[in-house]
Amino acid sequence: MTDTIVSSATKEVVIGFGRPFVMIGERINPTGRKLLAEEMKQGDFSRVEADAVAQVAAGAQMLDVNAGIPLADEPALLARAVQLVQQVTDVPLSIDSSIIAALEAGLAVYQGKALVNSVTGEDEVMERVLPLVAKHGAAVVAISNDETGISMDPDVRFAVAKRIVERAADHGIKPADVVVDPLVMPIGALGQAGQQAFTLIRRLRDELRVNTTCGASNISFGLPNRQVITGTFLAMAIGAGMTSAIMSPLHPEVLAAVRAADVLAGHDQDCMTWIRANRDPNAESEGRGRREGRRRRGAE
Amino acid sequence: MTDTIVSSATKEVVIGFGRPFVMIGERINPTGRKLLAEEMKQGDFSRVEADAVAQVAAGAQMLDVNAGIPLADEPALLARAVQLVQQVTDVPLSIDSSIIAALEAGLAVYQGKALVNSVTGEDEVMERVLPLVAKHGAAVVAISNDETGISMDPDVRFAVAKRIVERAADHGIKPADVVVDPLVMPIGALGQAGQQAFTLIRRLRDELRVNTTCGASNISFGLPNRQVITGTFLAMAIGAGMTSAIMSPLHPEVLAAVRAADVLAGHDQDCMTWIRANRDPNAESEGRGRREGRRRRGAE
Repeated sequence: MTDTIVSSATKEVVIGFGRPFVMIGERINPTGRKLLAEEMKQGDFSRVEADAVAQVAAGAQMLDVNAGIPLADEPALLARAVQLVQQVTDVPLSIDSSIIAALEAGLAVYQGKALVNSVTGEDEVMERVLPLVAKHGAAVVAISNDETGISMDPDVRFAVAKRIVERAADHGIKPADVVVDPLVMPIGALGQAGQQAFTLIRRLRDELRVNTTCGASNISFGLPNRQVITGTFLAMAIGAGMTSAIMSPLHPEVLAAVRAADVLAGHDQDCMTWIRANRDPNAESEGRGRREGRRRRGAE
Repeated sequence: MTDTIVSSATKEVVIGFGRPFVMIGERINPTGRKLLAEEMKQGDFSRVEADAVAQVAAGAQMLDVNAGIPLADEPALLARAVQLVQQVTDVPLSIDSSIIAALEAGLAVYQGKALVNSVTGEDEVMERVLPLVAKHGAAVVAISNDETGISMDPDVRFAVAKRIVERAADHGIKPADVVVDPLVMPIGALGQAGQQAFTLIRRLRDELRVNTTCGASNISFGLPNRQVITGTFLAMAIGAGMTSAIMSPLHPEVLAAVRAADVLAGHDQDCMTWIRANRDPNAESEGRGRREGRRRRGAE
């Protein structure tokens, strides 16, 4: 059992084997969202707050917060976003930036134990990010690439992950506080992307005994009906042992697949979460269930 | 690689590792379908024919045909159903009965190499079904229970499957012609049903090297929004190595999950089946994708 415990000022969330899958809401991220980027740059965080509330209402147990906007003061924006999101929700956050000063600014204002997103296996990055993680007693997402880039060989990616976990230990960060991202590639471009990810997730769990996460939507990039691909990927990854993902709980197909996978992996005691979610007469999935029922009766 | 080859008069289907998952349409089965049972009993097979055509149109590569109606002449009904289904479709059939005389009657009229559904690990059943399978050069579904019932211990079920494969070999039936059903229990009643099935499927593939199938809808019995549970189960089972299932391709959620799992398992070369299925403007999934697109744009 490996438990990664993160927290807000008032709430603890545990990422762990045999526990309900942890959905980390991905929406607060201006990458590819022009309007959001423009608003944040102008100091308007109303959409950030609305996205935070909506994702938690949909079922996200954590939220990722990213303020990566070209030519903007990212440290200031990230700190502001972290503060506002912590005011409107009580879930732990993943503080997401590739800029050390931004991670630092986010961590400085964060209340609780954050997840720092992310460190890679590059020496320079590890030596800058890991001391910061250690100083704040945070957990960290470890992305399994290094100076040589993203290897297509799962053994190499496993070795990189192992190296980060060891280096983290050198900095006093225990393996339970390192959540490995196996790096999910678009399946439309790389037909082996799914199998690579599942194999790596299984090894990371069985051999390295670490929790795992990934940016799930990347898998379906460029494909039609992509939410079904993303949701199905998540279910299969949960079957392989993945314990969290950065994803959107606002897509009904994705949310339903994760909840169903939790039932099937034995993480949803007595199916209570499933039954509750599907009892709500306003729930998308229940509505679909009823229509299906009518169709079948009609067909007889 | 283990290839189970079945055929109709004109078409061959291969169930095998690394190949597209084989969906065996489950609908031609009067169990729990009062109207269908009544019609078949009266000699009206129009719904059987319609169900056959609809399931193949939806994507079923094989069809299961069952005529188990209390107080009816099951051998005659099954033979008639097999003949009619072979007239209106060209896919190989799974001839489904627990009555030896009915299997015999079905096999007698069948054109091609059928899948006989099923034999159990009970001595008496093996000694009656396996000679029939051997005589007709058919393949057979092996259900992993024996005289002691259905064990809750996956090791016992694995041992039963192994015994059936060995006994089949004694009758001249090669392991590639035995498709093992690990027996899927309702997850609403047995929280470990999913994990049990996945563990067993993986062992059957890795150690016994056999193809696998199951009656998929059983997993979701009694739960709300059950098609999402069934579809997600199938995706996770495909991830664990399952190669076919008796299921309904007429439920859009189930069909989409299987197709997505085939993409993610690397069985759908260049995602061509997925892209084709989701290009059709009348396809359910594509329609949903468009609505989703509108919602997201609206939210921005």
